[in-house]
This record gives sequence, C-alpha cells and structure tokens, in this order.
Amino acid sequence: MSSSLPETLTMLQFGSVTNLMSLAIATLGAAAIYLFTAPRVGPRQRPAMMVSGLVCAIATYHYFRISNSWEHAYALDIPGGLYRVTGIPFNGFYRYADWIITVPLLMIELIAVLTLPAAKSKPLFFKLAISAFLMIGLGYPGEVSTSSAVIWTFFVLSMLPFLYILYVLFVELGASLDQQPEGARGLIKTARIFTLVLWSFYPIAYVVGKSSLGNASAEVFLQAGYTVADIGAKAGFGLLIYFIARVHSAAELENRAGTITAH
Amino acid sequence: MSSSLPETLTMLQFGSVTNLMSLAIATLGAAAIYLFTAPRVGPRQRPAMMVSGLVCAIATYHYFRISNSWEHAYALDIPGGLYRVTGIPFNGFYRYADWIITVPLLMIELIAVLTLPAAKSKPLFFKLAISAFLMIGLGYPGEVSTSSAVIWTFFVLSMLPFLYILYVLFVELGASLDQQPEGARGLIKTARIFTLVLWSFYPIAYVVGKSSLGNASAEVFLQAGYTVADIGAKAGFGLLIYFIARVHSAAELENRAGTITAH
Repeated sequence: MSSSLPETLTMLQFGSVTNLMSLAIATLGAAAIYLFTAPRVGPRQRPAMMVSGLVCAIATYHYFRISNSWEHAYALDIPGGLYRVTGIPFNGFYRYADWIITVPLLMIELIAVLTLPAAKSKPLFFKLAISAFLMIGLGYPGEVSTSSAVIWTFFVLSMLPFLYILYVLFVELGASLDQQPEGARGLIKTARIFTLVLWSFYPIAYVVGKSSLGNASAEVFLQAGYTVADIGAKAGFGLLIYFIARVHSAAELENRAGTITAH
Repeated sequence: MSSSLPETLTMLQFGSVTNLMSLAIATLGAAAIYLFTAPRVGPRQRPAMMVSGLVCAIATYHYFRISNSWEHAYALDIPGGLYRVTGIPFNGFYRYADWIITVPLLMIELIAVLTLPAAKSKPLFFKLAISAFLMIGLGYPGEVSTSSAVIWTFFVLSMLPFLYILYVLFVELGASLDQQPEGARGLIKTARIFTLVLWSFYPIAYVVGKSSLGNASAEVFLQAGYTVADIGAKAGFGLLIYFIARVHSAAELENRAGTITAH
C-alpha cells in the first residue's frame, strides 16, 4: 500500500485529484448508460457495445472506491490550510482490480466490433486479452512497492506485453483492415492511435510518479494522469467502438436488403 | 475553492439551500428515468431522448456531491442556533464539472430532436456545443476567485459565448423553423424562450452572489438560483424536448403510412 504518499498536499493539489476522480465517475457512468442503450446497433454488433458499457460501468464502481480511499488518506488541517496524510493507506489495488478486468475487455470489444471470421478473431482475442492481463498483473508489484529495484523491474516487465499489444494492433490487425467496410477503416485506425496515445499516459504517469516518491506534484501527476487516461481509454474508446458498430450495422443492413432484392 | 463563504448562516438560510439541493436530486433523478423510458418516441428521436436523460442523470450525481460538500462546509452550532463554516471548503467545481458536460449536451439534444438534414444540423451542433463549452470554461476562474478583477473579467468573457448561443438559437435556428412539423414550431419557440429565461438565472445569481462576497443572503441567493435554474434547464427542458420528439415521431409515422398507402 502506498506508504509513499506525500506528507502534505496543498488544497489545490488535493482538490484537483478529487475533482478529476469525480469527473471520471460522472463521465464513465454516463458513458456506460449510453453504450448499453445506444440506438442503431445491429444484433452482431450488440455484444461489443455491451462489453464497452460494462467496461465503463466497472470503472464507475472502482472510481467510487478510489475516490473514497483518496479522501480517507488525507485530512484537511484547517488552521494550516493544507491536506495532511492520515496514515490510512491509499488503496492502489482498486485501480489494478479495475484494469485487470477492463483492459482485456477493451481489447475484446475492439476485436468483437470488427466481426471478423472466427478463424481470424479467435487468435486475436486470445493474444490481446492474455497480453493485457499480463501487462496489468506485472505492473502491480511495481505500483505498490517503495523499492526502486522492484518499481523498475516490473515496469520493464509490464512494458513487454504492452509493446506486443501494439505489435498485434498495428501489424497483425492491419492485415484484416481491407476486409472492413470502407467507413470503418478510418475509425479502426483512429482506435489504434487512441490506444497507442492514451495507453502511453499510464507508463508516463508511472515514471513521473515513481521517479520522485513522496513528492506532492509527482503524486498529483500520477493520479491525474491515470484518471484522465481512464476517461479517454474507456469512455472515449467506447464511443469510437460505437461509431464502428454503427458503420458495420448499416453495412450489414444494406447487404441483407441487397440479398432480398436480388432474389 | 470558495474561501469566500459567509461565516455564519441562519438555520433557515442553510436549510433552504440544503432542501433545494435535495429537491434537485429528486426531480432530476426522476426526470432521467422518465426521459430514458418515455413512450411513443420514434427511432430517429430516441438519441435526443437518451441525451436528455443522460443530462439529468449526470446532474443527479453531481447534486449528491454538491449537497454533501455543502453539508461539510457548515456545522450547526447548537447553543448558538446557527450554522458556522467548518473551514472545509465548499467545492464549487462540482457545479462546473456538471455544466461543462451537460450544457453542451443540452444544445445537442435540442438540435438532435429537430432531425434536420445533416448539412444544417452539423454546423449548429458544432457552434452551439463549442460555445456552451467555452461559456462554462470561462465562468469557472471567476467562480472560484475572490479577486473582483478576476470575478468580473471572466463574467464578461463567459457572457460572450452566451450571447452568441442566443444569436444562433433566435436568428440562425429561426431559418429552419418553417421546415418543422406544425405542432413542433410552437414548442421549439418555447424551448428557445426557456433557454433565454432559465439560462439568465445563472448570470443573475452570479452577479448577486459575487457582488457581496461573504454576505449570507447573497450566498443563499447564488446557491438557490443555480439549483432552481438547474432543475428547470435540465428536467423542464428535457420534458419540452420530449414533447417535440413526440410531435416529430407522430409526423414521421404519418409520412410512412402515407407512402405505403400511395403505392
């Protein structure tokens, strides 16, 4: 447990993290409702939408936990006008519990929405979900440690599956792109760039946060970085999946209409 | 963080704000459920209803946060019979976090329900959502400041996008009104007046509240004004959107029936 929390935070530092966590609850919760119920999605695209909604719903739950834990970890020193650690540890496990469920699901929703033939989608599911699971699992020992040997060893170990995921998305998945409906190709490319950029927030936040343990600005950067990245990688990514689902649904409806007319 | 809160509030003053905040939770929460599930809405009008429901759901969440923060900012001095600041700041960010998400969505729900051709709706979406975002973003620095230069500079800056929104709604949107089903025209005009009147509550509450910082009545006026305006601008406006959606849905059903009969 993060015994490495900075002793004091200014009101602005503490409040910025609290506020971003609340923003995460509001946006992820709204995204979950939207993704579960969004219209004009065909039956073959519905599972991807359900998974996207679940990812946001699970994250909403965890942000309630994370934000409660954050508020218990500090107490306002009223005459001093700053926040001081209470000694109750901030529970970093909530983030990893969230990620170890939702990050493999994010990969699953991306592959599911492409409605590839099973022979293509199964190995992709397998590779991406397992790597995502490993990436998070290997990150956790570093996150909760205060020993820099542990922090950096597990950082490197966790980066390996991350790089493998990028390889699968940009190289292996690229080969399936030409079988996608035209309107979907650009969106899928955007989803990959989204993954690359937003997922890079996490190691960057980790490096900054862990490079100066106990430093107030570094801790705020770490918490803010993780939170902003979670909003983008889950709610923003979910919207992208929705746009892809819409293109696929429309294309299938047209194909079916075409088949009926042709007969 | 409002370090400008009045030192003491009477029980009536504190209670009035608390009670209005609770009323907001009840009405916005109920409106969210109603808008999500309201009957006799066609598939093309459903997205506008979803967005209206989301706006109310997001606001419901924020009113829980706002009301908790309000209750922590004061404590009852029992022998004195009045409420005294605790020193825990009242978190004004929750209102702005809410508005920066929901106010652009309010504009989006209005344009979405009109089901205009994409060439007309896209520029409207864009102009209104961006201006709404700017209006809220520019209001925040003034809201949390105690310097009157900052308070009034950002007030003026925030009023500019507000006036632009009114221009778009009353002038540019007016040009599309004659293509609306007859029953919808009056409702759309009402929705515009609603926006003008209810949205004017916010700057009025701001001016009154910020003109005498630390004054109890002014603070109560500010909090009560924001809260009443939020109920009207979200739940009330959502109902109006529903009425417009019903008219559009009925008109589309008739057109479709007409097409079938004509063949």
